[in-house]
Amino acid sequence: MDAKEFREFGKAAVDFVADYLENIRDHEVLPSVEPGYLLDLLPKDMPEEPEHWTEVLSDINRVIKPGITHWQSPNMHGYYPTSTSYPSIVGEMLASGFGIIGFSWICSPACTELEVVVMDWLAKFLKLPEHFQHASDGPGGGVIQGSASEAVLVAVLAAREQAVISCKETHPELSESEVRGKLIAYSSDQSNSCIEKAGVLAAMPIKLLPADDDLILRGNTLRKAIEDDVAAGLIPVICIATLGTTGTCAYDDIDSLADVCQALNVWLHVDAAYAGGGFALEECTELRRGLDRVDSLNFNLHKFMLVNFDCSAMWLKDANKVVDSFNVDRIYLKHKHEGQSQIPDFRHWQIPLGRRFRALKVWITFRTLGAEGLRSHVRKHIALAQQFEAFVRNDSRFEMVAPQALGLVCFRPRGDNEHTAQLLQRLMERKKIYMVKAEHAGRQFLRFAVCGMDAKPSDIEFAWTEIETQLTALLAEKSLAARKPSNVSELTQHFQMHLASDSGTHEKSQ
Amino acid sequence: MDAKEFREFGKAAVDFVADYLENIRDHEVLPSVEPGYLLDLLPKDMPEEPEHWTEVLSDINRVIKPGITHWQSPNMHGYYPTSTSYPSIVGEMLASGFGIIGFSWICSPACTELEVVVMDWLAKFLKLPEHFQHASDGPGGGVIQGSASEAVLVAVLAAREQAVISCKETHPELSESEVRGKLIAYSSDQSNSCIEKAGVLAAMPIKLLPADDDLILRGNTLRKAIEDDVAAGLIPVICIATLGTTGTCAYDDIDSLADVCQALNVWLHVDAAYAGGGFALEECTELRRGLDRVDSLNFNLHKFMLVNFDCSAMWLKDANKVVDSFNVDRIYLKHKHEGQSQIPDFRHWQIPLGRRFRALKVWITFRTLGAEGLRSHVRKHIALAQQFEAFVRNDSRFEMVAPQALGLVCFRPRGDNEHTAQLLQRLMERKKIYMVKAEHAGRQFLRFAVCGMDAKPSDIEFAWTEIETQLTALLAEKSLAARKPSNVSELTQHFQMHLASDSGTHEKSQ
Repeated sequence: MDAKEFREFGKAAVDFVADYLENIRDHEVLPSVEPGYLLDLLPKDMPEEPEHWTEVLSDINRVIKPGITHWQSPNMHGYYPTSTSYPSIVGEMLASGFGIIGFSWICSPACTELEVVVMDWLAKFLKLPEHFQHASDGPGGGVIQGSASEAVLVAVLAAREQAVISCKETHPELSESEVRGKLIAYSSDQSNSCIEKAGVLAAMPIKLLPADDDLILRGNTLRKAIEDDVAAGLIPVICIATLGTTGTCAYDDIDSLADVCQALNVWLHVDAAYAGGGFALEECTELRRGLDRVDSLNFNLHKFMLVNFDCSAMWLKDANKVVDSFNVDRIYLKHKHEGQSQIPDFRHWQIPLGRRFRALKVWITFRTLGAEGLRSHVRKHIALAQQFEAFVRNDSRFEMVAPQALGLVCFRPRGDNEHTAQLLQRLMERKKIYMVKAEHAGRQFLRFAVCGMDAKPSDIEFAWTEIETQLTALLAEKSLAARKPSNVSELTQHFQMHLASDSGTHEKSQ
Repeated sequence: MDAKEFREFGKAAVDFVADYLENIRDHEVLPSVEPGYLLDLLPKDMPEEPEHWTEVLSDINRVIKPGITHWQSPNMHGYYPTSTSYPSIVGEMLASGFGIIGFSWICSPACTELEVVVMDWLAKFLKLPEHFQHASDGPGGGVIQGSASEAVLVAVLAAREQAVISCKETHPELSESEVRGKLIAYSSDQSNSCIEKAGVLAAMPIKLLPADDDLILRGNTLRKAIEDDVAAGLIPVICIATLGTTGTCAYDDIDSLADVCQALNVWLHVDAAYAGGGFALEECTELRRGLDRVDSLNFNLHKFMLVNFDCSAMWLKDANKVVDSFNVDRIYLKHKHEGQSQIPDFRHWQIPLGRRFRALKVWITFRTLGAEGLRSHVRKHIALAQQFEAFVRNDSRFEMVAPQALGLVCFRPRGDNEHTAQLLQRLMERKKIYMVKAEHAGRQFLRFAVCGMDAKPSDIEFAWTEIETQLTALLAEKSLAARKPSNVSELTQHFQMHLASDSGTHEKSQ
């Protein structure tokens, strides 16, 4: 493919994306395919000869789009949002056009330095403590990781290595493997699965401490666990707190956790993958309480800042603790400016060596939306969640499970878990909206997350209508099943009753 | 930004990329900026109000492009190639337009299934053993990781967990931490820094065994190391061999390493990040010897398959060994097809939870280039390296340091290391071409890697002319310095001599 063809293909692809996103409500949010659908549609071998791009684009319509779950649709309510934006998509293309790998300053000064700039912009925008800025005097700063999982793993591994170094000094009688065998970390039983996985990968147990009844982890629980473990000869390393848990968007109590971590010399990391979006808002000031005392923090720009995945911001109070843990340089990676300036070599701040020019899409998105645009986006998600909450509270057949928080509403139809599961199954089969269920203390519930690139109040109304009419239908079916007739005349009589009852319900649901 | 503006911005960006890549030879490969250049050019805060995309695009020209190291330029010869391609750039944009996160099948069936398809296409194209295909009966298959670092880390961590499980069975008297304290892994002292880093991250020492004089690691060295370690009570876990070392593109002897690993029950991983491109060629059949007995393997598509970074293919002989090590599921990640089909949930095959739709750019690239296009690309790199090697061998002032291998030539000007360093420094200051130096056994040398999206014989000639004229100039300066005059009349005399000698040298260099 030459440049001329690329201009044609590229512009056709721009139109394809614009058409797709403009008309995204035309698609059922969930695809109607069965596992293996694509394996049957595509040839078993790469073509020997080149095919024209028009054939490929046509196949994207024919075989790929039918297998897409439409994350950018406002009818997506599963997981947390992954909102892309038009400027971010262009940024991704421009970055792949430059085609650089920015593992050190010399590999493209703009890549490293733009990351420094946008991470400082973001730190200020989110009103984070000043020591997280590169521009501050201290050893802190921000870096773009691929995902929250990687940010958490970086914190866990760096904390682990720092603990080993420090324990070998204070306990020279212990061998390194004895030290490693005593390390222990903490999080809440409400934390994301990536935290448990980080413990597996780091070969360091992470205790998932029971959150309080309101699903919040507090300092007293952590203190008790640490004291017990220290008494048993273990070495506490890190606590990973969450602002915006995956299940219910609960906010761990950073202030009291920081009290404990500071007193006992334990690294405190905050996974604010979702709730970090709230830091920017005056009305969410409470969310930032205690952040001045955390060692590291992550927030997914693809969740709330309209930057397409992957883009997970991470800040470190003392980046040297990561760099010193991970630096294994070779001569071919050195360059003459290395270590001579304030410009970080970000490869030492992350797991892999290579790094994409992610700062470009961030910069383009922030400039074309502006700070006010980003704040409006977060506020819109909150308002839409409040709209949904009002629908739930207004219908006595449903109950709230946790307070609405940012763009998330956790609710359930009153009754047993089976009832919740049946409602979700109906909704999944109809594919109009997509939610997932979660569970706490044996009680299953539904998570309604405001998602999509451009959700509107009418989308929330659409979702609510779908949910409540399906509950109505489910209740009607159950009532039918409960009175299952044993012969034909009873069946006839039953249907007459059911039709009457259904019509009544229908009126109510309007 | 609305869809209309996106269509304008996106199409302008397509033209920007096409213009940039068509005219990439107009740029000096290395930028002329000093550390901190961009921090001085950009505002300290995010703009409060949105800016128009035309301003942003104009700033990309004004402040970003001057800070780019032009990896797609044919004058880039540092590191290994990272060749993007026009179809791959479009693929990246389309993927960000869909804006999905494919961590499980239900999150977008097309994302998971297209990855299965292209990884099988690639396994066949590279003539890998059949058990690496998803379509085979066994538990093997391929997955796209972000980078070679991540692929190696996945192999190291999975091997570590498997070793712990197996040791706890055979040695129930040992505690888990005692087992972990005895684990040991192996690689060559020629392997990439990411392997040493994987050992740090995994908290498992990786011994960098001395390669033979030809920079190849062989089974006898590994066997001796393992036998010594076993005698000392350690537990050997994994050997990471390299096909195409970073320094000289040496190929470890997979066959003899596999003999040892099979006999001693050690995981054998092959990092073929670069040399994997040769697997596709009949004339490189030798490269694939022994691959039928390795447990896992990685190859960077961004190095040789014209897919833009990041895209690192990894194959596993038994993917269950990774899945069983990493699976920490939560209810909200479950879906009804989970575990019911042959379709993998790739989140268990990797470090992070989230995953981009990378298979799309791979599929688009493979289809628009065809198998023959990909093979031609690798062959072209080999031919260009051979062209460069001929230049080196034809000039007695230079010497080869290792055999030319694929697109890499390792050479040096005859003389001491200082001489090599001075030549490189001159070249770096002139910014016409970019190479990096490496070192083996105390001897520094230059790595000339064929890179860029579309390198041609004339580019190789350009590079060689630059190198040898700069050596000529360096030698002339040295000769001048050696005869540094002590007074004005001597200086005059010296310049007369130097002018005569310089003119002679000039003729020779033509």
